[in-house]
Amino acid sequence: MIKGLMQDRPLLVSTLIEHAARWHAQAEIVSRTCEGPIHRCTWGDIDRRARQAAEALTALGVRPGDRVATLAWNGYRHLELYYGVSGMGAVLHTVNPRLFPEQIEYIINHAGDRILFFDLSFVPLVERLVRAKTPLERYVLLTDREHRPPCDIPGLICHEDLIGAQPGDYRWPQFDENTASSLCYTSGTTGNPKGVLYSHRSSVLHSWAVCAADGLAVSAHETALLVVPMFHVNAWGMPYAGAMSGARLVLPGPALDGRSLYELMRDERVTLALGVPTVWLMLLQHVDGAGLRPADELCLTRVVIGGSSAPRAISERFATTFGAFVVHAWGMTEMSPVGTVCNLLPKHAGCTAEERLTIQEKQGRPVYGVDLKIVDDDGVSLAHDGKAAGHLLVRGPWITGGYYREEAGCVDEAGFFDTGDVATIDSDGYLQITDRAKDVIKSGGEWISSIALENAAIGHPAVAEAAVIAVEHEKWQERPLLIVVCRPGSTLDRETMLAFLKGRVADWWLPDDVVFVDELPHTATGKLHKLRLRQMFRDYRPPPG
Amino acid sequence: MIKGLMQDRPLLVSTLIEHAARWHAQAEIVSRTCEGPIHRCTWGDIDRRARQAAEALTALGVRPGDRVATLAWNGYRHLELYYGVSGMGAVLHTVNPRLFPEQIEYIINHAGDRILFFDLSFVPLVERLVRAKTPLERYVLLTDREHRPPCDIPGLICHEDLIGAQPGDYRWPQFDENTASSLCYTSGTTGNPKGVLYSHRSSVLHSWAVCAADGLAVSAHETALLVVPMFHVNAWGMPYAGAMSGARLVLPGPALDGRSLYELMRDERVTLALGVPTVWLMLLQHVDGAGLRPADELCLTRVVIGGSSAPRAISERFATTFGAFVVHAWGMTEMSPVGTVCNLLPKHAGCTAEERLTIQEKQGRPVYGVDLKIVDDDGVSLAHDGKAAGHLLVRGPWITGGYYREEAGCVDEAGFFDTGDVATIDSDGYLQITDRAKDVIKSGGEWISSIALENAAIGHPAVAEAAVIAVEHEKWQERPLLIVVCRPGSTLDRETMLAFLKGRVADWWLPDDVVFVDELPHTATGKLHKLRLRQMFRDYRPPPG
Repeated sequence: MIKGLMQDRPLLVSTLIEHAARWHAQAEIVSRTCEGPIHRCTWGDIDRRARQAAEALTALGVRPGDRVATLAWNGYRHLELYYGVSGMGAVLHTVNPRLFPEQIEYIINHAGDRILFFDLSFVPLVERLVRAKTPLERYVLLTDREHRPPCDIPGLICHEDLIGAQPGDYRWPQFDENTASSLCYTSGTTGNPKGVLYSHRSSVLHSWAVCAADGLAVSAHETALLVVPMFHVNAWGMPYAGAMSGARLVLPGPALDGRSLYELMRDERVTLALGVPTVWLMLLQHVDGAGLRPADELCLTRVVIGGSSAPRAISERFATTFGAFVVHAWGMTEMSPVGTVCNLLPKHAGCTAEERLTIQEKQGRPVYGVDLKIVDDDGVSLAHDGKAAGHLLVRGPWITGGYYREEAGCVDEAGFFDTGDVATIDSDGYLQITDRAKDVIKSGGEWISSIALENAAIGHPAVAEAAVIAVEHEKWQERPLLIVVCRPGSTLDRETMLAFLKGRVADWWLPDDVVFVDELPHTATGKLHKLRLRQMFRDYRPPPG
Repeated sequence: MIKGLMQDRPLLVSTLIEHAARWHAQAEIVSRTCEGPIHRCTWGDIDRRARQAAEALTALGVRPGDRVATLAWNGYRHLELYYGVSGMGAVLHTVNPRLFPEQIEYIINHAGDRILFFDLSFVPLVERLVRAKTPLERYVLLTDREHRPPCDIPGLICHEDLIGAQPGDYRWPQFDENTASSLCYTSGTTGNPKGVLYSHRSSVLHSWAVCAADGLAVSAHETALLVVPMFHVNAWGMPYAGAMSGARLVLPGPALDGRSLYELMRDERVTLALGVPTVWLMLLQHVDGAGLRPADELCLTRVVIGGSSAPRAISERFATTFGAFVVHAWGMTEMSPVGTVCNLLPKHAGCTAEERLTIQEKQGRPVYGVDLKIVDDDGVSLAHDGKAAGHLLVRGPWITGGYYREEAGCVDEAGFFDTGDVATIDSDGYLQITDRAKDVIKSGGEWISSIALENAAIGHPAVAEAAVIAVEHEKWQERPLLIVVCRPGSTLDRETMLAFLKGRVADWWLPDDVVFVDELPHTATGKLHKLRLRQMFRDYRPPPG
């Protein structure tokens, strides 16, 4: 072996903001603030303020490797912390404010956070944290003195006072690219949350995958609306990919209702929007309710949907009502998060709208950098035939090898991480998640996909939300139970629902029963809380059939 | 500092072909062969044959770190060597057959190549090499037994015999990503060629920059015609970026004339083509001569031009006659090579065709990963005002830090490599190369750009090619001399030429004289050989004026 002679330049998060500041200094960052008004600044401003933040953190005694927490919406101050904290070699720990307060306490303790930056919305939550026992030494309110409310937080300082005192001529230090850059806890439905510790290297490599033409194709041409929260999995890497490409970013703050998002899209001429299905359902309801004509009013061309499976109905509505293409993507907190992206192939050029929607129901093809396979219970790789469903294993430089402060790694001997998902892969390489491994329904030795059943049920116009869980069955071991929330003003009965499903799914997949409820339980990241549902229906027995 | 917990997966060239074989197995590689016919295979085939090549090399005694040379056009066999040789940990040394035979001997000796793979076209050249003293132990002719000509090369083996004997179930080894992957010598106009030794890491990172939406945006949607040779700077990284994205590649072999390229573009429905200006001039001449209608017959949407400055006239013709956008790019052998790419910005949406062409004359904006600055003779950074011209320095993970088998590095204390180019950068970050530092004309303390003068002269319809060099001047130290080759059948005189330039360049830039010649000297990579021109006109004195 001989070594190449290329320059040894580490891939650091700070090089992203340096690039943006030098070559995209005027590209805008538009934020809806907690204080109310729209705030405008540029990548050049973010760079300067990030350097001020690094100086202020240094002055507060923060050292490289220390964890600095945020409880914040998507906004320019949160963005400058992405660069200020990681850029100086400290670890940005983005805390999900939607977790239960006990979980937030747990992860702040587990992470050993020294300083907490938080938005105005979270004053009551932080007052509670102050009374709890945590390693937090200092609290910084992400606002200026004028907007500081009376509150019971000792030593509180306002962000603008903190960084305003600094010159902003900080020079980013150079260090090993494998140094930790940020930390995000998974919101598991069982056990305590686990910390995923990203590195500078993984964050930069992942950004390239996001900017790739066959990834999310983020470029300086885009105005990207980040509905996906910056407090969870680094907002799908967009704060980094935005700087890498010099994209214009629109950060919606706490206002995630349909009307607010629609107005931002319209007023800021958003071309690309990213978020989970729930927010798009709210947006579509607002559009319907207000009788809007988005195709005429907006510049939206693409909507990236991840976090949960993108229902066909959403992709269809975006195509017909907005003239926008839904890019279905899949990933995990443990994967930085992007694993697959559903872009079309040249062979699909002649597809009908219906055929295209069928492809868009899949989570897409792996981006380069993600090595992925589906295996049976014995670890044997399964065919890419679109039918064989198996455990989905992944490997790659932005996929975690372990959890923070856990001794054991989380990969097998070949380096693969078990996603806990069950998926099929078709002959063109399109992945489709059929279930969480623990949610799959094992009926007579075969697997029934709870997600496929839920997606079929949600196609009925009277259904607002649907969940399918396994219930015990004497003969078949498990059988599917469908639990439905009807749309306001709609009604539906068991037989109509089952008749609707017949022909849409295999006969032996048909749920043994349908139960109607007022609402379904969700996790802190908005996913169906299947564990709780299974507990709720533990004693349920389907009618004999 | 704490380390992140992301998986430690090395960035190896073999992971690119693995990705292509797994997720783009059916995407085609179309090659025009030296034997004559068009050959079709897939990324899946390239993967299998690359593994066979690695097995065959191992059987021949090639060890990791050994240098394996090629003298070959763009074709599938060359492509499989890109992966077979580098994938096993050996170093692919692509030799430029257009170098003088003495230079080829020199670099094969300097590189210490053990094996040479070569195309049918180069049999006479290799017969000469056999008689010379080189470290080459084995010669492999890139053809099958049927097409083997009689020749005087001891121990010659045909490629198909060599790899056909192998099973192709080789498993790519894992090793340090900083290991050397390939080697390319610069064709300097002075001194001996110097070897640039790329690494697996640099090759993979560079591929991401090529695939980025704001880079060359290579994706699975493209059918890319690589006119840029695979024997020079890895064909601008396209053999790697093609696998990363699963693009369909069209490799034109030795047939680089206008008619052959046009027919390939038409028959293979090429969407993206990459090459130096010279080949596009030949293509345009063919289109004119044959009265073709490319906009109706072709699917071409983008043409990437690098290697030399893209003349405005070429960009205009591609826009009007082909309906294709010229993407002007700049780089160097020492830069893998991509440094800047001239994509438009959102602010240019309303530009006229003429305004767009003016932007396209610039080499574009730096891709993320290339840290770049212009400085004066004292190393002080210059303004980005589109006027201040300075030495262009670059830094980054795919830029060389030294040359093969040279003790001294080639970067300054801050890690910057001096490109030897002189450039301006405008307020939007667009770089424009105004000269090679050694070609700039220093007149009365000010710099005159030889390239700007050449581009202005070439705008005259009677001019086929133009070169500007400095000649000594008593009063002004140096003054420009314009040397012109007229188009066949056209005539031009000094006064008409100067009158044409007046108003197109500053008055004090106007050449002191115009000389007409039948042809201009070029380097092996097709660039103007200014050193030789200066020697030719050493004793020339401009008329007093």
